[in-house]
Amino acid sequence: MKTPGKKKSAKKLGKTGSGKKTGLPPGSLIHIGQVKTEKTSFDLIKADATSFEVMKDISLNQILNHLDPAKTSWIRVIGLQNASLIGEFGELFKLHPLFLEDILNTGQRPKSIVEEDALFFTLKTLAVDKENNIIADQVSFVMKEKLLISFHESELSIFEPIFKRFEVPAGRLRSSGPDYLLYALTDLIVDHYFQVVENVANALDQIEEKLITDMNEQILDQIQHNRKELIFMKKLVFPLREALGVILKAESDLLNRKHLRYFNDVYDHVMQIYETIENYRELNTSLKDMYLSELSHRMNKVMQVLTIIATIFIPLTFIAGIYGMNFDYMPELSFKYGYFIVWFIMLFIAGWMLVLFRKNKWL
Amino acid sequence: MKTPGKKKSAKKLGKTGSGKKTGLPPGSLIHIGQVKTEKTSFDLIKADATSFEVMKDISLNQILNHLDPAKTSWIRVIGLQNASLIGEFGELFKLHPLFLEDILNTGQRPKSIVEEDALFFTLKTLAVDKENNIIADQVSFVMKEKLLISFHESELSIFEPIFKRFEVPAGRLRSSGPDYLLYALTDLIVDHYFQVVENVANALDQIEEKLITDMNEQILDQIQHNRKELIFMKKLVFPLREALGVILKAESDLLNRKHLRYFNDVYDHVMQIYETIENYRELNTSLKDMYLSELSHRMNKVMQVLTIIATIFIPLTFIAGIYGMNFDYMPELSFKYGYFIVWFIMLFIAGWMLVLFRKNKWL
Amino acid sequence: MKTPGKKKSAKKLGKTGSGKKTGLPPGSLIHIGQVKTEKTSFDLIKADATSFEVMKDISLNQILNHLDPAKTSWIRVIGLQNASLIGEFGELFKLHPLFLEDILNTGQRPKSIVEEDALFFTLKTLAVDKENNIIADQVSFVMKEKLLISFHESELSIFEPIFKRFEVPAGRLRSSGPDYLLYALTDLIVDHYFQVVENVANALDQIEEKLITDMNEQILDQIQHNRKELIFMKKLVFPLREALGVILKAESDLLNRKHLRYFNDVYDHVMQIYETIENYRELNTSLKDMYLSELSHRMNKVMQVLTIIATIFIPLTFIAGIYGMNFDYMPELSFKYGYFIVWFIMLFIAGWMLVLFRKNKWL
Amino acid sequence: MKTPGKKKSAKKLGKTGSGKKTGLPPGSLIHIGQVKTEKTSFDLIKADATSFEVMKDISLNQILNHLDPAKTSWIRVIGLQNASLIGEFGELFKLHPLFLEDILNTGQRPKSIVEEDALFFTLKTLAVDKENNIIADQVSFVMKEKLLISFHESELSIFEPIFKRFEVPAGRLRSSGPDYLLYALTDLIVDHYFQVVENVANALDQIEEKLITDMNEQILDQIQHNRKELIFMKKLVFPLREALGVILKAESDLLNRKHLRYFNDVYDHVMQIYETIENYRELNTSLKDMYLSELSHRMNKVMQVLTIIATIFIPLTFIAGIYGMNFDYMPELSFKYGYFIVWFIMLFIAGWMLVLFRKNKWL
Amino acid sequence: MKTPGKKKSAKKLGKTGSGKKTGLPPGSLIHIGQVKTEKTSFDLIKADATSFEVMKDISLNQILNHLDPAKTSWIRVIGLQNASLIGEFGELFKLHPLFLEDILNTGQRPKSIVEEDALFFTLKTLAVDKENNIIADQVSFVMKEKLLISFHESELSIFEPIFKRFEVPAGRLRSSGPDYLLYALTDLIVDHYFQVVENVANALDQIEEKLITDMNEQILDQIQHNRKELIFMKKLVFPLREALGVILKAESDLLNRKHLRYFNDVYDHVMQIYETIENYRELNTSLKDMYLSELSHRMNKVMQVLTIIATIFIPLTFIAGIYGMNFDYMPELSFKYGYFIVWFIMLFIAGWMLVLFRKNKWL
Repeated sequence: MKTPGKKKSAKKLGKTGSGKKTGLPPGSLIHIGQVKTEKTSFDLIKADATSFEVMKDISLNQILNHLDPAKTSWIRVIGLQNASLIGEFGELFKLHPLFLEDILNTGQRPKSIVEEDALFFTLKTLAVDKENNIIADQVSFVMKEKLLISFHESELSIFEPIFKRFEVPAGRLRSSGPDYLLYALTDLIVDHYFQVVENVANALDQIEEKLITDMNEQILDQIQHNRKELIFMKKLVFPLREALGVILKAESDLLNRKHLRYFNDVYDHVMQIYETIENYRELNTSLKDMYLSELSHRMNKVMQVLTIIATIFIPLTFIAGIYGMNFDYMPELSFKYGYFIVWFIMLFIAGWMLVLFRKNKWL
Repeated sequence: MKTPGKKKSAKKLGKTGSGKKTGLPPGSLIHIGQVKTEKTSFDLIKADATSFEVMKDISLNQILNHLDPAKTSWIRVIGLQNASLIGEFGELFKLHPLFLEDILNTGQRPKSIVEEDALFFTLKTLAVDKENNIIADQVSFVMKEKLLISFHESELSIFEPIFKRFEVPAGRLRSSGPDYLLYALTDLIVDHYFQVVENVANALDQIEEKLITDMNEQILDQIQHNRKELIFMKKLVFPLREALGVILKAESDLLNRKHLRYFNDVYDHVMQIYETIENYRELNTSLKDMYLSELSHRMNKVMQVLTIIATIFIPLTFIAGIYGMNFDYMPELSFKYGYFIVWFIMLFIAGWMLVLFRKNKWL
Repeated sequence: MKTPGKKKSAKKLGKTGSGKKTGLPPGSLIHIGQVKTEKTSFDLIKADATSFEVMKDISLNQILNHLDPAKTSWIRVIGLQNASLIGEFGELFKLHPLFLEDILNTGQRPKSIVEEDALFFTLKTLAVDKENNIIADQVSFVMKEKLLISFHESELSIFEPIFKRFEVPAGRLRSSGPDYLLYALTDLIVDHYFQVVENVANALDQIEEKLITDMNEQILDQIQHNRKELIFMKKLVFPLREALGVILKAESDLLNRKHLRYFNDVYDHVMQIYETIENYRELNTSLKDMYLSELSHRMNKVMQVLTIIATIFIPLTFIAGIYGMNFDYMPELSFKYGYFIVWFIMLFIAGWMLVLFRKNKWL
Repeated sequence: MKTPGKKKSAKKLGKTGSGKKTGLPPGSLIHIGQVKTEKTSFDLIKADATSFEVMKDISLNQILNHLDPAKTSWIRVIGLQNASLIGEFGELFKLHPLFLEDILNTGQRPKSIVEEDALFFTLKTLAVDKENNIIADQVSFVMKEKLLISFHESELSIFEPIFKRFEVPAGRLRSSGPDYLLYALTDLIVDHYFQVVENVANALDQIEEKLITDMNEQILDQIQHNRKELIFMKKLVFPLREALGVILKAESDLLNRKHLRYFNDVYDHVMQIYETIENYRELNTSLKDMYLSELSHRMNKVMQVLTIIATIFIPLTFIAGIYGMNFDYMPELSFKYGYFIVWFIMLFIAGWMLVLFRKNKWL
Repeated sequence: MKTPGKKKSAKKLGKTGSGKKTGLPPGSLIHIGQVKTEKTSFDLIKADATSFEVMKDISLNQILNHLDPAKTSWIRVIGLQNASLIGEFGELFKLHPLFLEDILNTGQRPKSIVEEDALFFTLKTLAVDKENNIIADQVSFVMKEKLLISFHESELSIFEPIFKRFEVPAGRLRSSGPDYLLYALTDLIVDHYFQVVENVANALDQIEEKLITDMNEQILDQIQHNRKELIFMKKLVFPLREALGVILKAESDLLNRKHLRYFNDVYDHVMQIYETIENYRELNTSLKDMYLSELSHRMNKVMQVLTIIATIFIPLTFIAGIYGMNFDYMPELSFKYGYFIVWFIMLFIAGWMLVLFRKNKWL
C-alpha cells in the first residue's frame, strides 16, 4: 500500500479521477484509482443457522454454482482493476451500470441509492499509515434479496472480526440476513473512524505540549498537516451522514424494520465523529493562533532585550565621544579626577536607565 | 474523582472510547471510561401518595422482590464498571442491548430514543473541579411504565434535593409517575449547567479585568483554556437540544401530556445555555484579540521610546566624532569657546528633536 | 437604577440567575435579579368605549372587587421582589407556576407560550443610561379573556404614551380588547429598541470620525464596548423573533384575527432591528480592523523616519571615526583642506542617501 | 438631491427613523426621511388597448372624477412630506393605515403583504451619485383591482422607459392589467441594481489595479467604503428576496397566473444580485488582505535595507574606534602602512558582509 | 477565444450585462456578451434506432423541412450574436420570450424551468486557457417532445464524443429520446468541470511546493488568482445544484422516469464538485496563512541576526570610545599592556554575549 506523497494534498482532497472517462457513455466501466491488489478475485461466504462456509478466490461460474437461495450469501469482490471482469459479474447479477461505474471510481463520494430490488451503498474505510497520513479505501455494497455483494480496493484486515463472529453458531450474523451483515460491516468501518480520530487527537495533544516545551518551526507544518487530514475526513464523513439518512428513511423490503435501530446507531456514531472533526478543526485553528502568538512573543522578547542593550550604550558612547574631541580648550580634561567623574556619570546613567526600564517592565 | 490533565484536551473533546470495542457485535457490553466508584450497586426508591421508601445497595433479587406495580419505582444503578452485572440487570428488565451499550460507553453523546414501551435518554452532568476544569459525568435513563431506571458513573451529590422533595407527602414527585421524576432529574442536571456557565463567566470577567490591571503571559493560556471548555460544553449541550426535541415530539403513552410543558421548560433552559455558550465563545475570541492588540501595543511603545533615545544621540555622537578627528587644520578646535559652542549646538539639536517628536505625538 | 459595572460584561451577557433555585421543585417562586422598586404594588386600569379608570397601588382584594367582566382590564404588577405576594396573586388568577417562575426570573430569555385560556409573553425593554450602557428591564404579560396582566421590574416611563392614548374616548385601545393592548405595549417596547440601536449607530459613527481626526487608545475599548452591547442586544432580539412567531402562528381565540396584522408589523420591526444589529456587528469589526491597521501604520511611520535618521548618520560617524584614529602616518590629516573635504564628502553622502530614500518613497 | 455625508455610514446602514413616532398609535401618519420634492403631487395614468392618457399634478377630486373602471389606472404619488394629504388619499382609496405608515417611513425594509383585495409591496431604487455613494429612494406600491398606486420619494428618471412602452398601442403594458405594470416597474428597479453592482465591480477592479501600480493609504478607505456600500446593498436586497417570494406564493386573484413567470424572472435577478454582492464582499475582504500584506511587505523591505546599512557600518566604526584610543603603547599605530591596512581590513569586512547578505537573500 | 484580462476579475465575477437592456420590455432580445463566432448558424441532428443524420449550417426553412416527428431531433444554434434571427427561430418553435432573453444573456446564472410542454435549462461549460484562467461558455437547452434545442456561444470541441456515440447503431443515444440526450450533454459538461477542478488542484499543490522550495512574492498573486477562480466556479456550480434539483423534482411527461437516475448521478457529481471547491477554498486560505507566516518568519530571522551583530559591537565601540577620551589623567593609558588588556576584555565580552545569545536560542 503506497502512502500518499506530501505534495499531493490538494489532489488527495479533490480526488475524483473522472477526467479519465470524460465523454464516455454513462456506465462505461473504467477503473479509476490506484491498483492495490494483484488481480480481481471473488470470495463467496454462505451462512445459515446451522452452517457457515467460506470459498476463497473462486471463478464466476463457481459462484453461480454454489449460490444457495436458502442461505444468506456474501460475495466479496477484491481488487477493482479488472473492469471487464467486474462488468461481466455485474451483468450476471443484474447490477445497474451506474452502480458499477461508481464502484470502479475510487474517488466516488459516499452515497446510497435504495431501489425496489437493490440497495447500493458506498463509503470509505480509513486507516493511518506509518507516516501518519490517513489512507482511504473504498468499499461499495450492493444488497439484494438474501445476497450482499461487497467491492473492495484491497484485502483489508479490518473485516476479520466479522469472520470470527460468523463462526459463532448462535450468532446473529448467521440468522439475520444480508441487511444485518451490511450493518455489521458498516459498523466496523465506522468504528475504525474513531481510531483515526483518536490519532488526530494525539497529534493535537502533542502539538499543544510542544508549544510549551519544545517550540520549533515544524509545528506549523504539523498543524497544516492536521488541517488537511481533518478536511479530508470531513469530506468523507459529511456525505456519509446523508447516505445513511437515505437508508434510514427508505421503505424497502430489503431492510428489516427491526434492524433499522442498528443503522440508527451507526448514524449516531457518524454524527459524533462529524462533530468531533468540527471541534478538532476549531482546536487546530486555535493551536495555530497559539503558535503564531508564541512565535511573535519570542521574537518580541529578543528584539526588546537587544534594543535595550543598544539604548543603554548609545548615550554612554556619546559621552565618551565628547571627551574624545580635540578642542584646545576643554576644561574638564585637565581636572584631576575628570576621568573618574565621567566614569561615575556613565555608570549612574546606565544604572538609572536600568532602573527605569525595570520599573516600566521593559526588562 | 480525578481531574483531567491539562495535556489531554483534544482527547477530552473527542472522548469516544469506541476503539476498545471495534469489531465486537453490537450490544457487546464493555465499560468504556474511568472507574469512579468501588463497585456497581443498586438502589431502589418506591413512592406513592402515602409512602416513600429508599433501599440502598441491594441485590438484583431484592429489587425484583420489592418492586411494587402500584407504586412509582426508581432504580438507581451506581458505578458502571461491572458490565456483566449490568448485562444481567438489562436482561431482567428487558433493556435493548444497544441501550446498555450506550449506557456503558461514557463517551456517548446526549441522545434519546422513544419506543413503544421504553424511553431511553442519556446526558451529562457538569461540575467544576478545584482546578477550574469542567468534569462531565454520564447519566442515562430508561423509563418504562411506572418505572424509571437511572445509570450513574458515580454517586453524585447533585441529586440530593430530589430525595428531600420526595419526603414531602403532598409533593408532586410522589404522585406524578416516572415521567415527572425524569423531568425533575433532567431539570436538576440542566440547572447545574447554569452554575458551570457562571463559572466561565467569572473566568471571562477576570481576564477582562486583568487585561487592564495586570497584563501577563498567562492570560493567553487562560483564554485558550476557556476556549476548550466552551467547545467541550457546546459538544454536550448541542445534541441535548436535539435529544429533548425528540422527547417533546414523541407521541408516547409513557409521557403524560400534562408534563410536556415541564420538558418544554427544560428545553428552553438548554436553548438559553446554548446561546450563552455561543456568546461566551465570541466574547472569549474578542478577549484574545484584545490581549494580542494590547501586547503588540506595549511592545510598540517600548520599541518607540527606545528608538527615540537612540535617534537623538546618534547625530550628537556624530558631532562629537567630527571634533575627535585629528586633522592638522581644523579651525573650530582653536576657537576659545568652540567646546562650549558645540555643547550648545548639541543641546539645541537634542531639544529641537524632542520638540519635533512630541509635536508628532511620537513621544 | 444602578448601571451595570464595566467589569461584569460576561455575567451581563449570560445573566441567568438560575443558580439560586437549583434543586427546588419547578414553579418554586424566588425573585432573581436586582430589586428596582421599594415594594411590589398593583395597579388596575379598566376601560371600555365610554369610560377609563386608573387605580394605583391597590391591594389584591381591591383588585378582585373592582374587576368588571364587561370591561377590558389591565393589571400592572410593579416590582417583583415580593415573591410570596406574587404567588398569592398567581393563585388568585390561576396563573401556571411555570409562568410565575419565568416572570420572577429576570434573566429569562424572551419567549411566549400560547395555551387554550392564557397567553404568556415575556420580553425586555431596552434603555441607555448616562454611561452609555444598555440596561434591560423585563416585562412579562399574561393575557386572559378580557384581561391583560403585566409584570414590571420597575415603574418605567416608556409606557406613559399608552395612558394618553387611553384617554382618547374614541381610541382603538378602549374598544379593542386585551390583545390589542398587548400589541400596543409590545410595539412601544420594540420602538424603543430603535432608539437604542440609533445610540449604537452614533457610537459607531463617532469612532469612525475619531479614527481620522483623533486617534487614541480608548477607541479599542469603545469598539469592545460596542461589541458587547451588540451581543447583548442580539441575545434579547434573536429569541424575540421566535416568540412573536409563536404568537403569529397561534390559533387562539384570545387573539382577534384582525389584530394579527399588527403583530406582524411588530415582527417586521424586530426583523429589521435584528438585521441592523448584525450589520452593526460587521461594521464594528471592520472598525476594529481599521483601528489596528491605522495603529500599525502610524507605528511603522515613526519607526521608518527614526530608522532613516539613524541610517544616515551611521556612515558619517564611521568616517569621523576614521579620521579620529591615531596612526602615525595618515596622509589625509595633513592636507590643508582635508577637514573641509571630509565635511564635503559627508554632506554629499547624506544628501545622496536622502535623495535615494525619497526616490524609493521611504521618506 | 443631497449626498449622504461620509461620517454617517452607520446611521445610513441602520436608518429606521422610527424614533420619531415612538408611542404614537399604529398607523399614525408621520413622514420619516429627507424631503426630496417641493410638494406632494398626484399623477394619473390611464390606459387600455386603444387609449393612453397621462394627467400630471392633479388634485384628489380630479383623480376621483377621472378614474375609469374599464381601464387600467396607475396613480403616482410623488413626494411624501405631506402626511395629512396622503392620509386623506389613503382614506379615499381605503388603504390600511399600516400600509400608509410603511409608505411614509423611508427607512422601511423591503416587504410585501398580500391581502384579499390589495397587494402591498415596498422596495428601494438604487442609484450612484457623483461621489460614488449609493443612494436609495423608497418606492411603495398598493395594487387593487384595475388600479396600481405607487408612492415615490421623488420624481425619478428611471421610470421614463415605462411611459415610452405605454405609448406603443399594441404593447403588453396597455392590455395586461395592473399586475403586469407592477412587474414592469419592479423589473426596471431591479435592472438598475445591476448598474449599481457594476459600479462596485469597477471600484473593486480599480483597487486591484492600484494595489500593483499606485499603492497608497487611501486604498484602505476605499475598501472600507466598498464594504459599507455592499452591506448597505445586502440590507436592501436580502429582504427583497423574501418579499418577492411572498408575492410568488400568494394565491391572489389580483395576480394573473400567466404573469407569475415574469415575477419569477425578477426573483431570479434578485438572487443573482444577492450572490454577486456576497462574492464582492468576499473579494473586497481579500483585497484588504492583499493591501495589508503589501503594506507590511513594503515596510519590511525598507527596514531590512536600512538595518543592513547600519549593520555593515557598526563593526567598521568599532575598528576606527579602536585606533582612536589613546594608549601609550599601541604597536599598530606606528606601522608605516597601518592606516592602509586598517582600510583594507574594513573594506574586506564590508565586502564579506555584503556577499553574505546577498547569499542569504537578505539584500 | 479571448482570454479574460487580469484586471477584470470583479467584473468577471459579477458579469451580468443586464445594464444593456434596462428599461426594455421583458423578452426584448439583445445579445449580451462577447461575440465568439462569425455568425449564428443552425445544425440539425436526427436519429432513430436505424439512422443517424447530421446537417450542418442549414437555414431555418431547411430545418422545418427536415424535421421528422418520428425521430429524435437535436437542433444546435451556434453563435448568439444575431438576436433577430434567434427571435425568428424562437417564434417558429414557440419558445417563450423569457427563455430567449436568458439564452441571449451570457451572464445568466444556471437555472432550469420545467413547464407543461417545454423544459428550459441553462448552464456553463468550463475550460482553462493557456494563462490558466477559467473560461465559461454558456449553453442553454430547450427540450420539447422529441426535440432538443441547444444554444451555444461557440462551437466547442467538448461535445465531439456525443457524435461518436451517436454513430453506434445500438447505442442508447439513438433510441432514448431527447431527455437522455440532454442528460448526456449535461454529463459531458459536468465531467469537464472535474478537469478544471483538477487544474486548480495542480495550482494549489504547486503553491504548497513553492512555499518550501522557492518562496517568492508571486505566490500571493497566485493565491489571490486561485481565490478568484474558486469564487467564479462556486458562482456557477452553486445555482446548478438548484437547477438540477428542479429537474429531478419535476413531474413532467417530457422526462422519462427511467432516465431520472442519470440526472441524479449528474446531481451527485455537481455536489462532489461543489464540496471540492469549498475544500479548495479552505485549503487556499490556509496556504495564504502559511505564506504570510513564512514571510514574517524570514523577515524576523533577518532582523534578529542583524540586530545581534549590532548589539555585540555597540558595547565594544563604547569601550573604544572610553580610551579615545583626551583626559589628562587616565591611568590605564600608560599601562604597558593596557591596549592588549582592553582587546582581551572586548573579545571576552563579545564571546560571552555570543554564548548567551546561543543559550537563549536567539542565534
